[in-house]
Amino acid sequence: MTVTHPEGFRAAGIAAGIKASGKPDLALVVNDGPQFAAAGVVTRNKVKAAPVLWTEQVLQFGTLRAVVLNSGGANACTGPQGFQTTHATAEKAAELLGCGAVEIAVCSTGLIGEQLPRQTVLDGVAAAHAALAGGEEAGQAAATAIMTTDTVAKTVAYTDPAGWRIGGMTKGAGMIAPSMATMLSVLTTDAALDAAALDEALRAAVRVSFDRLDIDGSMSTNDTVVLMASGAADPADPAAFTEALTVACRDLAAQMQADAEGVTKRATIVVRGAASEDDAVLAARTIARDSLVKTALFGSDPNWGRIAAAVGYSGAELDPERLDITINGVLLCKGGCAAGDRSAADLTGPDVLVEVELGVGSAEAEIRTTDLSHAYVEENSAYSS
Amino acid sequence: MTVTHPEGFRAAGIAAGIKASGKPDLALVVNDGPQFAAAGVVTRNKVKAAPVLWTEQVLQFGTLRAVVLNSGGANACTGPQGFQTTHATAEKAAELLGCGAVEIAVCSTGLIGEQLPRQTVLDGVAAAHAALAGGEEAGQAAATAIMTTDTVAKTVAYTDPAGWRIGGMTKGAGMIAPSMATMLSVLTTDAALDAAALDEALRAAVRVSFDRLDIDGSMSTNDTVVLMASGAADPADPAAFTEALTVACRDLAAQMQADAEGVTKRATIVVRGAASEDDAVLAARTIARDSLVKTALFGSDPNWGRIAAAVGYSGAELDPERLDITINGVLLCKGGCAAGDRSAADLTGPDVLVEVELGVGSAEAEIRTTDLSHAYVEENSAYSS
Repeated sequence: MTVTHPEGFRAAGIAAGIKASGKPDLALVVNDGPQFAAAGVVTRNKVKAAPVLWTEQVLQFGTLRAVVLNSGGANACTGPQGFQTTHATAEKAAELLGCGAVEIAVCSTGLIGEQLPRQTVLDGVAAAHAALAGGEEAGQAAATAIMTTDTVAKTVAYTDPAGWRIGGMTKGAGMIAPSMATMLSVLTTDAALDAAALDEALRAAVRVSFDRLDIDGSMSTNDTVVLMASGAADPADPAAFTEALTVACRDLAAQMQADAEGVTKRATIVVRGAASEDDAVLAARTIARDSLVKTALFGSDPNWGRIAAAVGYSGAELDPERLDITINGVLLCKGGCAAGDRSAADLTGPDVLVEVELGVGSAEAEIRTTDLSHAYVEENSAYSS
Repeated sequence: MTVTHPEGFRAAGIAAGIKASGKPDLALVVNDGPQFAAAGVVTRNKVKAAPVLWTEQVLQFGTLRAVVLNSGGANACTGPQGFQTTHATAEKAAELLGCGAVEIAVCSTGLIGEQLPRQTVLDGVAAAHAALAGGEEAGQAAATAIMTTDTVAKTVAYTDPAGWRIGGMTKGAGMIAPSMATMLSVLTTDAALDAAALDEALRAAVRVSFDRLDIDGSMSTNDTVVLMASGAADPADPAAFTEALTVACRDLAAQMQADAEGVTKRATIVVRGAASEDDAVLAARTIARDSLVKTALFGSDPNWGRIAAAVGYSGAELDPERLDITINGVLLCKGGCAAGDRSAADLTGPDVLVEVELGVGSAEAEIRTTDLSHAYVEENSAYSS
């Protein structure tokens, strides 16, 4: 199940004709209430897509009736014309749902710098509205319609013993280095929580889930995560809700990691002994982004020297004489020196755990990433994909 | 001609047996005076190789008689034993040249985390000393002995109308994102300049040459540039010398760019209209490091949206509505929007010029980089190369 798992939500995913391939490209997720509280986070990229500019504005009111999402075009770097397309999309959905345009969030994903075919999108919103339904099938259709280079739809569902539920969907396989948000993700809940509680829970969850995923260091112009609450169930304990939401977001982030462009290895980089959590994130992220570390992962090569070099230029505080590096449980570097035969570490499997001790404090953090493979180069060197 | 181009220098490059392949792996560059002024810059990586720690110390005195360089091993992350190897290397060269060990700089390059075979290196220093000679052949031998994944030796020579000369050699094809220095480079001059003048000239030249080259964003543990002056010619005008040294360093940097691991495109990223030079460098460097931009270059794809996204997350100040992007002379993005058909830009040749206007100031900077190709992935995924 997906965004339709909680009570009070319907969804649809259809082929509007935005993608030349004719594949599904437009999704609609509607909150039928009785409450319409919402929160969201968007990319910190200074070049923001039109739908991001729009959604940032409407999120200020803490109320959303629906989210319209399209693949087949990012509507980024499209100027006033692109913004008008987003605005018209929200107005169309609002008209159909009998609410105001400011209660409609809009998300887009695809190639940057091309105008969306406005009428095609508006007709698609009408078709999606006509197709709205609750249940598994409609939720999966919505999750499928937002895919770009994703090879599988990514969804999550959780039911709390207290009765409330969380559902979610996400997309993203490249240009993934979220900052305050990631790609497109819609989360739903029937827990009765107000916008402020949702905002607090969402920021806490995103910070340690989507924000700790780094596929290629490229922060998108379109990253958006929206959380809507229908209030169809009882109020939830905020702490329990935040914890469940965090687990759901980490689940979606892991699905994006597993389906990343060209992935052959899923790597988890854990940095400990840092002076601060920020420093631990900085060191782990620098390792995760280093092209030489990523190609070594692809080659199943326990080349810990490249990890040491990356930590060294990351800017994180460290003691070179207390630097330890462990790969898949084998200590390869102890106190800044070789700890034994590097070939003792077996990296031939699909999962790699890299643990680094900086030796200056007690803070730690984890970043999930992937390798840099021939398939990544192939997929991203094709014409304007 | 190379480091032996100025009067007062001899060099040698020999196969000491450090590399298992039996290829040349040890170089010696000797200043025969009458003066021995020197300057140098080393990596800012916090994980510094033993020879970097040594050379940083001896450079404080502003006097060098010689530089010993080896390929076949970085002598980084090798602890006290590695530092003793560097110290013994300097002592051996000093004994042969009749000077103090503090007048000998040492540079190493190769795999991180393995001890160098100390006796092999010391015997190599003796063999190199015996082979010392002036002239073209000896200079080329030295430049060849420091190669790792380089496919060609990289040298430069300049003769000023005033009579003084500059020579130089460098190596480096990957793990190149220098900061205050790049890989291993030895520059020589017969101009009569003191250590302070050399230091000033070298820092000015490096800042706009090696420091503006970024192949893969990975800063090495071993980067070192050393400049030695024999004083065998007349004193040079400091401004003229700095200018000539800058041209020489840019020439060597361009040679490293052209021979980068897996390179199929040489890209120059020019950012203008920045609030400061630092901001221009930040934006240009972020573009140069972005995996999606680099794979698009490999695919000859004028995908300017990826450049816009990279500029947007770089942290540089910019006005999204005044953002212009030009590729190979074709304006593709004007005022943050598509300026026409992107296919008008032809990227099929080996050289690509990317020009970006940030629209907020008048500062500019240029970074040279390369594409991200299958060959880069292939070369760097091989076992512990």
